[in-house]
Amino acid sequence: MEKVNIAEKFAGFSETWRPKTIGTVDDYDVKLVRIEGDFVWHSHPDEDEMFLCLEGRFTMEFRDRSVEVGPGEMIVVPRGVEHRPRADAQARIMLFERRGVVNTGDAPAGDLTAGVGERI
Amino acid sequence: MEKVNIAEKFAGFSETWRPKTIGTVDDYDVKLVRIEGDFVWHSHPDEDEMFLCLEGRFTMEFRDRSVEVGPGEMIVVPRGVEHRPRADAQARIMLFERRGVVNTGDAPAGDLTAGVGERI
Repeated sequence: MEKVNIAEKFAGFSETWRPKTIGTVDDYDVKLVRIEGDFVWHSHPDEDEMFLCLEGRFTMEFRDRSVEVGPGEMIVVPRGVEHRPRADAQARIMLFERRGVVNTGDAPAGDLTAGVGERI
Repeated sequence: MEKVNIAEKFAGFSETWRPKTIGTVDDYDVKLVRIEGDFVWHSHPDEDEMFLCLEGRFTMEFRDRSVEVGPGEMIVVPRGVEHRPRADAQARIMLFERRGVVNTGDAPAGDLTAGVGERI
């Protein structure tokens, strides 16, 4: 029941594409992630995924269109929908998703695949 | 798969203590709420509840202490823990909690009890 200061948490890591859990709500994680560059195309067959843009801007690419997301905006990617986040400059994102979700979803594990459950 | 602009959503309502759902992640709701004044003491026996302060400040009172939460800070109230949010001036909060959670939890329904599932 301690509060969490988001800026302090971001100050504790610098790597991109590595979500860090800062809180849990039942079986769901609240995570912070820095993103920059192009991620991989993937989907999460069984989980929706929420992206809340805290700083910077990013683009959520879908197969048929893309959505620009800026500070104070959020987007939910429904389960099963292929997507690829992309950021020309570094952006700071909050994620809400079920515990255990792998960031690269159904894509083959690779350099961008982060460990699950890393806390900060 | 549309983005949601949080400021635009807040502009769509003015009442306090009435959470509005702006997105869903699996069986969980992302809600916005304006709070001002004292809420009622209550707990949620089966659900954790996340409060993210977007604007303003609030106090989360527990029976044995209280925590001041400002912009860019969050707090998770675990299931079963009595709490009472309070804000001297109006604050804007994002909530993340399981669908169907009643804002006043196990307290008797009253003026502060909001409808469940109201979207904006």
